[in-house]
Amino acid sequence: MPIADRAPDYIRAISPYQPGKPISELAREMGLVEASIVKLASNENPLGISPMAKEAIARALLELARYPDGNGFALKAALSERTGVPMSGIVLGNGSNDVLELVARTFLTPGSEAVFSEHAFAVYPLATMAVGGKPVAVPARDFGHDLDAMAAAVTDKTGVIFIANPNNPTGTFLSGPQIEAFLEKIPERVLVVLDEAYTEYLSDDDRYDAIGWLARFPNLLVSRTFSKAYGLAGLRVGYGLAHPSVIDLLNRVRQPFNVNSLALAAATAALRDEEFLAKSAALNRRGMAQLTDAFRAMSLEWIPSWGNFVTVKVGDGDQINRKLLAQGVIVRPIASYGMPQWLRVSIGLPEENARFISALQQALS
Amino acid sequence: MPIADRAPDYIRAISPYQPGKPISELAREMGLVEASIVKLASNENPLGISPMAKEAIARALLELARYPDGNGFALKAALSERTGVPMSGIVLGNGSNDVLELVARTFLTPGSEAVFSEHAFAVYPLATMAVGGKPVAVPARDFGHDLDAMAAAVTDKTGVIFIANPNNPTGTFLSGPQIEAFLEKIPERVLVVLDEAYTEYLSDDDRYDAIGWLARFPNLLVSRTFSKAYGLAGLRVGYGLAHPSVIDLLNRVRQPFNVNSLALAAATAALRDEEFLAKSAALNRRGMAQLTDAFRAMSLEWIPSWGNFVTVKVGDGDQINRKLLAQGVIVRPIASYGMPQWLRVSIGLPEENARFISALQQALS
Repeated sequence: MPIADRAPDYIRAISPYQPGKPISELAREMGLVEASIVKLASNENPLGISPMAKEAIARALLELARYPDGNGFALKAALSERTGVPMSGIVLGNGSNDVLELVARTFLTPGSEAVFSEHAFAVYPLATMAVGGKPVAVPARDFGHDLDAMAAAVTDKTGVIFIANPNNPTGTFLSGPQIEAFLEKIPERVLVVLDEAYTEYLSDDDRYDAIGWLARFPNLLVSRTFSKAYGLAGLRVGYGLAHPSVIDLLNRVRQPFNVNSLALAAATAALRDEEFLAKSAALNRRGMAQLTDAFRAMSLEWIPSWGNFVTVKVGDGDQINRKLLAQGVIVRPIASYGMPQWLRVSIGLPEENARFISALQQALS
Repeated sequence: MPIADRAPDYIRAISPYQPGKPISELAREMGLVEASIVKLASNENPLGISPMAKEAIARALLELARYPDGNGFALKAALSERTGVPMSGIVLGNGSNDVLELVARTFLTPGSEAVFSEHAFAVYPLATMAVGGKPVAVPARDFGHDLDAMAAAVTDKTGVIFIANPNNPTGTFLSGPQIEAFLEKIPERVLVVLDEAYTEYLSDDDRYDAIGWLARFPNLLVSRTFSKAYGLAGLRVGYGLAHPSVIDLLNRVRQPFNVNSLALAAATAALRDEEFLAKSAALNRRGMAQLTDAFRAMSLEWIPSWGNFVTVKVGDGDQINRKLLAQGVIVRPIASYGMPQWLRVSIGLPEENARFISALQQALS
């Protein structure tokens, strides 16, 4: 028997995640100059990274031959101070993707079920399938989570529920009271992961206190990332907050040095740079208005978004995407999310947004 | 039922990996100045990192807000050129630890078995247990792998065999012909992982061509790391080489952005810096002689080592380790490897080795 056939069926059934096309790859494929390419495909921070994080990286560069601190003491201490969660209630991940995967590996087994919404983040079914779990995608309501239907989908086999708020790739939002009411309905034996990768973009009016719920709901895990508003996507660092008994288990499965030294240093510093965060959120609000104003002028339908991206209906998403690529503009087709008529566009700098709008006009004409 | 009780027994049975104590942690605990501490506990490169890698990092710092290239095109191209293995036969990992874990997740299921040697790398049983597999530790021969006994331990349930060469933490070595003969005996349905984390330290006389075996043994995976001789432990990057059908499966389980941007850039550059590698190996040879000469003078038993570390018998390892820590010297106690009378010491700079020797003399007196 060939060795590849020895892997279980559930591994062989996985289609790997399709990331946004890297600039270097498009440049190679199309013979374009990298500097001429605009990438609005991966919800990255167009302002780059916090100056305070940059300084911390420069200092940490001197110690690269050393293994990272596998316990992430300094970053956990900073997160604990910021959130009020004890260090024993924090797990660090190689991006929040790593946290999501640790959850799947710890709380799902072959045959158990993970519940999430249609049009929600692709990593939920991938992490579930990689452990032989059964992904249960609950039909969306207005492109967002249908929490009643999700609660109704819980069975004896359910190990984990994933909720993305705001949701990626559709940008939809659930209010604090809606999530709180949902948590009250879910049995304590089911872990609820509240994935807040985009929470830093919420306005003060929309912001809710998920961390305050941790004491009441020992089956809640809040995951966050430094890849979006903090601008550290290239370094890979995210975290999860939960009851210490849950975190203790995740740490047993976690790779001892899953977060690299520079990510630890940069994230610790970035947490303190509130000015950079505020600037990033403000730029995002202006860019969101710039794009949605253009969509309105072009009579295109879009889904109101609470994230740093917006999803717009263009007709044949694949065809329009190819026409954008030919013009050196990378956005994200989301046919794999069941939305072949839509494209997801990250909010960029004003000039990047303008370049996308004009490329889109040309592609649609 | 409390949520933590929902995790399967095999997860709850795991004791997490015990890393070498970070310098910052010892400084905190003992009230020592960090600069006064000598760490010879994690087999790190005392020369730091390659100057070529440093330059590559400086360039890559400009793009940290971008996600890494999830396919690792540039690094795989460089590895392919260097090894002759096609890019489709290469998987990149967040350290080679990540590669070992991908293997366990892809080729082991609850109930299947992984075979490895007593006194071999702690991550083999950890990665096995995390997927519910059964770790089968085969008694060592002279602190190294007993390949005949390992071949005899293969059953219908065996999914993976892990071989570390040189072995960590004992430093023992298997010759090329010994491994080749072993591979010929193992059924093709069992994946053999040859973990060559320390292979760059081998002399030309000992070096063997594992990559040349890949064509004959589709069930062989060779794993390597940039954390040791290449000095990039803090950045986390390693790789696996195997038949493309095996690599394809590992990539389905791999996190899409498991290797960060700086690690990709640094490793690509480090591969070209043969001068740095030669300098690191030469320093290691001199340091090994410095330590073993001292052990001989002190009438201490040690295990001849092919790696960048050496394991020495000190009596009560825990007690001597505490006496070393009190003097600001960090080495690795290996009671958890079944060797409570021994300490593993990494080869450092000449002055670090001297500091350790004198601290050891004091601790033993």
